[in-house]
Amino acid sequence: MSYKIAVLAGDGIGPEIVAQARKVIDAIAEKFDHQFEYTEALIGASAINVHGNPYPDETHELCMNSDAVLFGAIGDPKYDNDPNAKVRPEQGLLAMRQKLGLYANLRPLEPFKALLHKSPLKTELLEGVDFLCIRELTGGIYFGRPQGRSEDGQTAYDTCVYTAEEVERIVRLGFEFAGKRRKKLTVVDKANVLATSRLWREIAQKLEPEYPQIEVEYMFVDNAAMQIITWPKRFDVMVTENMFGDILTDEASVISGSLGMLPSASIGIHTSIFEPIHGSYPQAAGKNIANPCATVLSAAMMLDHAFGLKMEAALVRLAVEKSIEANFVTEDLAEGGKAFSTSEVGDWLVNFIK
Amino acid sequence: MSYKIAVLAGDGIGPEIVAQARKVIDAIAEKFDHQFEYTEALIGASAINVHGNPYPDETHELCMNSDAVLFGAIGDPKYDNDPNAKVRPEQGLLAMRQKLGLYANLRPLEPFKALLHKSPLKTELLEGVDFLCIRELTGGIYFGRPQGRSEDGQTAYDTCVYTAEEVERIVRLGFEFAGKRRKKLTVVDKANVLATSRLWREIAQKLEPEYPQIEVEYMFVDNAAMQIITWPKRFDVMVTENMFGDILTDEASVISGSLGMLPSASIGIHTSIFEPIHGSYPQAAGKNIANPCATVLSAAMMLDHAFGLKMEAALVRLAVEKSIEANFVTEDLAEGGKAFSTSEVGDWLVNFIK
Ligand SMILES: CC(C)[C@H](C(=O)O)[C@@H](O)C(=O)O
Ligand SMILES: CC(C)[C@H](C(=O)O)[C@@H](O)C(=O)O
Repeated sequence: MSYKIAVLAGDGIGPEIVAQARKVIDAIAEKFDHQFEYTEALIGASAINVHGNPYPDETHELCMNSDAVLFGAIGDPKYDNDPNAKVRPEQGLLAMRQKLGLYANLRPLEPFKALLHKSPLKTELLEGVDFLCIRELTGGIYFGRPQGRSEDGQTAYDTCVYTAEEVERIVRLGFEFAGKRRKKLTVVDKANVLATSRLWREIAQKLEPEYPQIEVEYMFVDNAAMQIITWPKRFDVMVTENMFGDILTDEASVISGSLGMLPSASIGIHTSIFEPIHGSYPQAAGKNIANPCATVLSAAMMLDHAFGLKMEAALVRLAVEKSIEANFVTEDLAEGGKAFSTSEVGDWLVNFIK
Repeated sequence: MSYKIAVLAGDGIGPEIVAQARKVIDAIAEKFDHQFEYTEALIGASAINVHGNPYPDETHELCMNSDAVLFGAIGDPKYDNDPNAKVRPEQGLLAMRQKLGLYANLRPLEPFKALLHKSPLKTELLEGVDFLCIRELTGGIYFGRPQGRSEDGQTAYDTCVYTAEEVERIVRLGFEFAGKRRKKLTVVDKANVLATSRLWREIAQKLEPEYPQIEVEYMFVDNAAMQIITWPKRFDVMVTENMFGDILTDEASVISGSLGMLPSASIGIHTSIFEPIHGSYPQAAGKNIANPCATVLSAAMMLDHAFGLKMEAALVRLAVEKSIEANFVTEDLAEGGKAFSTSEVGDWLVNFIK
């Protein structure tokens, strides 16, 4: 069996970190006798430079015809301080999410034991944390219309919209994941203020009887923002809408203390994409110093979720864990010890797997 | 000179904690020879019970005719798990904000030295934290219309709206406060996605030349959610819209480690209200165990912001600080030591002031 992987390395450190993930996947292919077929395409600022479009049609076609997409990072500082720029790398991201129907963003948070001391939180709060944030990714205020300005330019408006179908799809996914884990689902909303949140709560309540083994709790988003810091281990699976998810998943990510270690998956109708949660880190681009582990762990999620290769995925995760324990790390984790390069860490992982 | 204070004690522990703040204000009155005139009114669940309305007209009239409002807390568990209840205590809060034009919610965050160890964050991250969150409180998705459901009930929508005038009013307040502090203003938005955020950014940029001494930074809300945890001392004044402010101010509040110590003010067109940020803590109601300090510190904000009595306000703050240092605290802060009652802490503060 051969798996088709679209490779969108993107901007900044994207190409370097994706290269390590490919090496790791190749090592898996060799060891387990799988075929992976890679095809590269442009996205983000690199695509704007060539095509004037951050998500060109060729790239979209490729993704549509792939079993999975391995994604690096996008973003270029030259667009950052110009919110009115006509074309921006992030638009490519939003277009991709919408066109591929990437409705569910998954972010597992399970800090590595050897890195707990790097967290801004006290260590005792981190021990035993293992939760999965599920963010709705193609609806809500990100895509709702109308959006814009009144004729005189003096009033601006955005619209948050959700259909019952969109909500059911993602909340159901929450129930399903909770069923495979510790059987607890936290539905985060602002039902005391928003009509869309009341729809979310209504639908979650409607689904409850179908999943009698799952304990469901409803939590307001402001409270969730507090609980993530004060009591993160209370969460198993959290599901929430797009904008709340943007804020809460980033908040949750920093409590691990090592952004360079966190993978994500965005499950889609047409295909799914796998990417590190960190950005394109332009200052480090081309220097061979960035931490490739988040991308490698994203590749592990790809093996697991997209291809069903559970054992292979587990081996990749083990390799990363062992590299941390062996202190074979890039400078972000070196803490005065020896810092290895991006590609050296990639090589170490490959050797471990072999 | 006599100051008219409307007293809305509200639900749960509201009456007990407000009683301590009144004792403290009375002590200030005596020492500095001021006149404070209190009038009480109902709000929240207590108002629903009597009038079927969480913000009755009498209460509104009273607030309109007062120099300031001292507020306890609202909320009753019997309404909590019923998002479709016709009348809810929180509606009183939203009605009050809108009718009194309480456009700016101010939350200072300056953890007490003696309590730094209570934070979920590592102590070194907390040292030197001193920031002011300013949340817009009468606009955005909380009040934007249309809001509701399609005819078939299958689609729900909310509208986020801001006018240039509303944005300028609050951002200007941010500049003004920054000018009196460390001269740094962080404008938090999601200008890469939202039209309303682009209006915010445009207006803040327009105001910049009027405040050449203020350093302005623009930050996306997801990044702000991370920075509050990883580097809170980078903030001086933060200003943001209603929904983002709801989430970020609650997130910021827990890093202090003691919710029972945090005051707030909501500046309005017609009057201003002063209230602890914590809730009505129904389990503790009537037990004389709740921490009154957040309410007492809110009264200090009232003396300062509403009446211009800076020295008096400073004395109240000093009293609270000294009570903490003397370990004369309620059970939430006692940590195995002796816990004093709500009214005993109130008495201690009164004696210190005298
Ligand atoms: C770049 C931006 C549009 C995007 C988002 O808000 O979704 C990013 O913050 C993310 O979380 O992937
Ligand atoms: C009760 C609720 C409507 C309210 C809000 O969201 O504004 C509360 O969370 C607050 O922050 O005062």
